[in-house]
Amino acid sequence: MSSATATKPAATTDAEATNGGSGGSPPSPRQVLCPPDGINPALEAMEYAVRGPLVLKAGRYAAALKEAAAGGKPANLPFDSVVLCNIGNPQSVGQAPMTYLRQVLATIACPWLLAQPNIRAELPADVVARAEAFLSSTHGLGAYSESKGLPSVRASVAAYITARDGGEPADSDAVFLTNGASDSVKNILEMLVRGPTDGVMVPMPQYPLYSAALTKMGARRVSYGLLEDDGWGVGVDDLEAAYAAAVADGTTVRALVVINPGNPTGQVLSQAVMEGLVRFCERHTLVLMADEVYQVNVYAEGKTFTSFKKVVRSLGSPVELVSFHSTSKGMIGECGLRGGYMEVVNFHPHAMDVLYKAASVSLCSNIPGQVAMDVMVKPPVEGEPSYALYKQEMDSTYDALRRKAAKLASVLNTLPGISCNPSEGSMYLFPRVVLPPAAVAAAADAGMKPDGLYANELLDATGVCVVPGSGFGQAPGTFHIRTTFLPTEDAMEQMVNRMRDFHLGFMKKYGGETTA
Amino acid sequence: MSSATATKPAATTDAEATNGGSGGSPPSPRQVLCPPDGINPALEAMEYAVRGPLVLKAGRYAAALKEAAAGGKPANLPFDSVVLCNIGNPQSVGQAPMTYLRQVLATIACPWLLAQPNIRAELPADVVARAEAFLSSTHGLGAYSESKGLPSVRASVAAYITARDGGEPADSDAVFLTNGASDSVKNILEMLVRGPTDGVMVPMPQYPLYSAALTKMGARRVSYGLLEDDGWGVGVDDLEAAYAAAVADGTTVRALVVINPGNPTGQVLSQAVMEGLVRFCERHTLVLMADEVYQVNVYAEGKTFTSFKKVVRSLGSPVELVSFHSTSKGMIGECGLRGGYMEVVNFHPHAMDVLYKAASVSLCSNIPGQVAMDVMVKPPVEGEPSYALYKQEMDSTYDALRRKAAKLASVLNTLPGISCNPSEGSMYLFPRVVLPPAAVAAAADAGMKPDGLYANELLDATGVCVVPGSGFGQAPGTFHIRTTFLPTEDAMEQMVNRMRDFHLGFMKKYGGETTA
Repeated sequence: MSSATATKPAATTDAEATNGGSGGSPPSPRQVLCPPDGINPALEAMEYAVRGPLVLKAGRYAAALKEAAAGGKPANLPFDSVVLCNIGNPQSVGQAPMTYLRQVLATIACPWLLAQPNIRAELPADVVARAEAFLSSTHGLGAYSESKGLPSVRASVAAYITARDGGEPADSDAVFLTNGASDSVKNILEMLVRGPTDGVMVPMPQYPLYSAALTKMGARRVSYGLLEDDGWGVGVDDLEAAYAAAVADGTTVRALVVINPGNPTGQVLSQAVMEGLVRFCERHTLVLMADEVYQVNVYAEGKTFTSFKKVVRSLGSPVELVSFHSTSKGMIGECGLRGGYMEVVNFHPHAMDVLYKAASVSLCSNIPGQVAMDVMVKPPVEGEPSYALYKQEMDSTYDALRRKAAKLASVLNTLPGISCNPSEGSMYLFPRVVLPPAAVAAAADAGMKPDGLYANELLDATGVCVVPGSGFGQAPGTFHIRTTFLPTEDAMEQMVNRMRDFHLGFMKKYGGETTA
Repeated sequence: MSSATATKPAATTDAEATNGGSGGSPPSPRQVLCPPDGINPALEAMEYAVRGPLVLKAGRYAAALKEAAAGGKPANLPFDSVVLCNIGNPQSVGQAPMTYLRQVLATIACPWLLAQPNIRAELPADVVARAEAFLSSTHGLGAYSESKGLPSVRASVAAYITARDGGEPADSDAVFLTNGASDSVKNILEMLVRGPTDGVMVPMPQYPLYSAALTKMGARRVSYGLLEDDGWGVGVDDLEAAYAAAVADGTTVRALVVINPGNPTGQVLSQAVMEGLVRFCERHTLVLMADEVYQVNVYAEGKTFTSFKKVVRSLGSPVELVSFHSTSKGMIGECGLRGGYMEVVNFHPHAMDVLYKAASVSLCSNIPGQVAMDVMVKPPVEGEPSYALYKQEMDSTYDALRRKAAKLASVLNTLPGISCNPSEGSMYLFPRVVLPPAAVAAAADAGMKPDGLYANELLDATGVCVVPGSGFGQAPGTFHIRTTFLPTEDAMEQMVNRMRDFHLGFMKKYGGETTA
């Protein structure tokens, strides 16, 4: 919703205004959902770079390569594969699912398997036991659960949180299961935003779900800059300045979003910084929205993840906190199952009731995603038949991520005009690219953003798809790209070479630095 | 979003304002999300009766019965089971999932199954072939798909629609896969509503997703009454009157919602009526939102489902149409998998782009739901190994639904003060209950709606949970309940007896009619 005026859409005679490609009906003399003012302007204004035009182009390249391969002909492209580094989608670039998780999911999905003696005999005993326990205590995958999610899964989540936070208790009634973490984020923002002068503090750079959701709601985004020269750290002074400026502008600031480990920036916050952020929220009566979906993706020596829940509790703080988590990240990377949760802390009972009601309108999150969440937070333990394979799979994925994060950062840092903070955590690097003035001018001529030009030429030349930094926000005059380090190590090797060659060629073409 | 003023929430000293039950931290002197004005008032105003307080109470009764049974003690309740007739959730009340669908889903979920010779040998050959085709052409269940959904599933949906509509072509690019149909509905409403004077025409009674979503967006609901005395039909004159009144009230009407087969009312519209509705939308330049999730749940002799797509095409109409469908209903009842689609017709290309962008922010719908949709619209065919079992399962579910719909309506119609149109389709009956004045007065004393009192006493006395008609909307002075007919035939037999006894007792207690 927005503050737009509600006028009847103008008539259009656009001959293209037919049917979105489905053919067969005559052009409409008038349409409801058409330019210039027929569509909710807040949706028109919304941007989401992670899946923007560059990604559609990458899809077309991939299709062309596939078609050419099928026909035994060359594709007339300067690369032989498309490498999607635009999105944290591990299983799309070769990561295998966790075997135990999928065995449990399959057995729950199809109780018929358990009834076939020859199949049952092949399944690990702990898989059979877990599936049977689930099936006997629920209505299975095919029934709506209660709106907040299955009680048993919420109990598993609460136990996980308690253990993670060193015994600090969690309440399963304060856990809501949602389709990925995205739905949780949207649910909270929808509660917070009461009108067009309400605002939410969001880091810059940020994950664009936040900006997109706020734009859609017609609310204000209050950006606070992360400190690139300080490893993408957060400075409370900067927060205070951003807050004060927003208030001076008539904004009622309602919440602070912190992404830790960072997306797109990969930093892992220290407990001291986190305490400062909690105190900041206390001082200004803000809800603390803690995006902690990368909580187990921490690679840097000496860095550990601390939850905001633990910090809030250790300070005895009354701050209203929401922590988001997901099955899409971590070492399991189950993006397609769309499992997610939020834990709310220090919420008013009435706010809990409103959250419940909002969840009810969507009936429930998908049950396979709930099952995936259950397994993620309650994996096999030592002594169980599936433990050894589980541990091996998790460890090898983790070790590979750590190696790939380090490798990509170190190669990028050898290139002239590129500087890259290490990825302490998450699945991304956000290198800064010093673009030559000629490239900035060429981008302006082409109606593109400079980092958009860079990412576009990178895709055209190498098949590597990254996201321009402008899709996340960046300090004025600086340019970045966000890249995952998720492709397999072989693919990464090749990709890194392609990126190096491209970058050197790009700098030469536009007269930039060619030596580091 | 709403038109609410954006004031800072008042401080609260409410001692209960702690942490939603998770214990351990001191009460907050101030909270953000708290009464009286800390929460988005549009969310506060939103109602969703299908999962309201009555359902929570039913859950408590069920838990008490379970606990008592576990302890070997009586529960001190006047019934021995809770029967949930509040929601179309077939597998929660005993319907088994379709075997083939679950075999396919399990095999896709766990490719390990295919690699075990002893398991593979037990799986039907068509299941193995389908799973292998899916796995080789996609990244499996664990990767985000493209935002609109997997191309192969959208192609299956388009082929289904084409066959359903007698060859009228459908375009897979005009199909969007979503988490249930609910997300599709919300996506379209969010495009339509530009500000607080935009409105959408919704039937009365209606499925409360529509009212809830419009309330949340701060938009206007323009109700048009269904004609109870005419089998819940739609009269174009009534539509015109409702439209004219809305326009006179300053509302910009943007769309017409039609639910066919009806929810909660069960009527199946004739092609002639549908043509009148399409012409109405043409006349007033409205988007036609066709909620067709019960399209295969048609039971009445001589009635068949006709899609609005077919009517729009047969008229050569330029009306912008969206048709919603779901895996949750039909004969498969896969509610928990949250599969859904919308097909858009006659949409402006720019509107398609905005829909794509909105879908992108949510990344994609869950993949198990997409797989379920694929199987639903492309089931086994004659000659395939799984066909016989598939057909038997679908037929027996269908036949049972038809018998149960007829039986429940006929019993209800024997009761004094109850009249019930037959369920020509869908999963519901919406009987009218003539409540005695003393009951209406007792409800007022208790601060309840009269039909809420009836439903509440029904639950307390029998364990049968239905939804008061006021949750769907009803003509002033009339009272209804919505009940599913989904419980097993044995459970229905018992439930019908309990309802009869309760009703006669209720009428006696409040001095109403006690003979039909």
